[in-house]
Amino acid sequence: MKLHILGCYAATPRTLTNPTSQVLEIKNHMFLIDCGEGTQVQLRKNKIKFSRINHIFISHLHGDHFFGLPGLISTFRLLGREKEMHVYGPKGIKEAITLFLKLGDSWTNYPLIFHELVSKERQIVFEDDKVSVETIPLNHRVYTNGFLFREKLGERKLNSKAAAAYKIDKVFFKNIKKGNDVILDDGSVISNDKITFDPDKPKSYAYCSDTGFEPEIIPQIKNVDVLYHESTFLESEAKLAPKTKHATAKEAATIAKNATVGTLILGHYSTRYKSIGLFKAEAQTVFENVELADDGKTFEF
Amino acid sequence: MKLHILGCYAATPRTLTNPTSQVLEIKNHMFLIDCGEGTQVQLRKNKIKFSRINHIFISHLHGDHFFGLPGLISTFRLLGREKEMHVYGPKGIKEAITLFLKLGDSWTNYPLIFHELVSKERQIVFEDDKVSVETIPLNHRVYTNGFLFREKLGERKLNSKAAAAYKIDKVFFKNIKKGNDVILDDGSVISNDKITFDPDKPKSYAYCSDTGFEPEIIPQIKNVDVLYHESTFLESEAKLAPKTKHATAKEAATIAKNATVGTLILGHYSTRYKSIGLFKAEAQTVFENVELADDGKTFEF
Repeated sequence: MKLHILGCYAATPRTLTNPTSQVLEIKNHMFLIDCGEGTQVQLRKNKIKFSRINHIFISHLHGDHFFGLPGLISTFRLLGREKEMHVYGPKGIKEAITLFLKLGDSWTNYPLIFHELVSKERQIVFEDDKVSVETIPLNHRVYTNGFLFREKLGERKLNSKAAAAYKIDKVFFKNIKKGNDVILDDGSVISNDKITFDPDKPKSYAYCSDTGFEPEIIPQIKNVDVLYHESTFLESEAKLAPKTKHATAKEAATIAKNATVGTLILGHYSTRYKSIGLFKAEAQTVFENVELADDGKTFEF
Repeated sequence: MKLHILGCYAATPRTLTNPTSQVLEIKNHMFLIDCGEGTQVQLRKNKIKFSRINHIFISHLHGDHFFGLPGLISTFRLLGREKEMHVYGPKGIKEAITLFLKLGDSWTNYPLIFHELVSKERQIVFEDDKVSVETIPLNHRVYTNGFLFREKLGERKLNSKAAAAYKIDKVFFKNIKKGNDVILDDGSVISNDKITFDPDKPKSYAYCSDTGFEPEIIPQIKNVDVLYHESTFLESEAKLAPKTKHATAKEAATIAKNATVGTLILGHYSTRYKSIGLFKAEAQTVFENVELADDGKTFEF
């Protein structure tokens, strides 16, 4: 898994910082998560191929997470896209994008499929044989979902040396990777664990932005490898957090600690702060393994 | 008058180029003309104070002229704006912006006043005692207006030396600047032309983008000081111009020549071209006084 931070600052795009957008590479998917104004330029700067994006997840319809979407969808058309594009986001997103395209008489040539979300319960919104994506209901001023990306357990890995020692024919390999034993011509049974290794442990990534401090999400994100949690404020502005339904760095760390996640990545910093170093320091008073998102930064895990 | 080019490339924002937006400084106004994605960042880069913008003119509702508007309007709110903002653009613009603000539950705190345009005839859309702005109906794939900005003739300028020589009291100056003669205490009349100079010649700026070659606009823009005319294509792609209702550099120059404008500024270059030098060369085969717009460039006239 690889996470590309395209933008991770709150409120308004500025000369050197961008509103929220990120790309998660997971099992050959390139999932775009949120799409603030300027996302398409950030995709270019970060050398991410537009053609590899087929799924866009929008947490909520505040401008700093959403206003880059009409332009991105239009640019896909200009680039000659033909493949389906799936957009997951709050109800209303279809009407909004459709209106913008209609006013410009600029319908997409490719199928643009909206998956509008209304449920306040968690739900699986995407699933294939390798990955699932489910919503994480968050607590913000408007209807907002985080997203939980989980790899599925892969096939068992063939132990080639052992298979050779047992003189097992290649035709059995596909079946072996599925976990089956092998019955040789002489009737003897080779149990699967002798000729395979365990598959890689499936990885998981939880994206939680924007939200106030919301302990109800902890059971759902328990033990994820990586949690991206918004931290709009430092302790000095902690009073503003509940009013605006945003979180502080310490609150994000408290969620991370109680969910026993592997790594906490902080982001969605208020643009009032001139540097972001203090976010890490304050979070680490609660939870050790903290990373700071920044525009253009990537994380591999 | 001073023109700030914030963006002057067609179609889609890229790492180093921006879609259309410009700011015209004229008689203490800062008029924003078109608002492609990224305009608010370009305003910052070009050090234009957001608070000085009170009027936004949108030519048409294609993304590269319009998709920066929701974000800019939201940012004005975040900056604590209280003054009225006037937006002039094609019918539908109010519904579009209103829907985006509604979905984010982010109404502006300041009065946001839309002046929706539907007429295919030219019309004055803004006027005060110093400036008028009228639409220039253009020929594009969707309903599109250019805008003609005209300074009004100012007051006559006092000839201080002459006024002193005639011993004219200051109380008369306001009246003299309005063009009136002065009657001295002894009954003698000093005619206005002896104590004033002509006011500065009013300047005019015509913005014409996007449009195909449209000679019908020539009478309206006759003798303007500066014409900004789109030139999406070079001669090598001239065939595409009528199909897409865009113009070539030579067509823009032909309009400039027949309208006997002072200076032609070219812009709205197709992003297919790696450099823009040829636009000037091709235009100058028709009309001599050609300038090339480029992002971040300013023109004073």
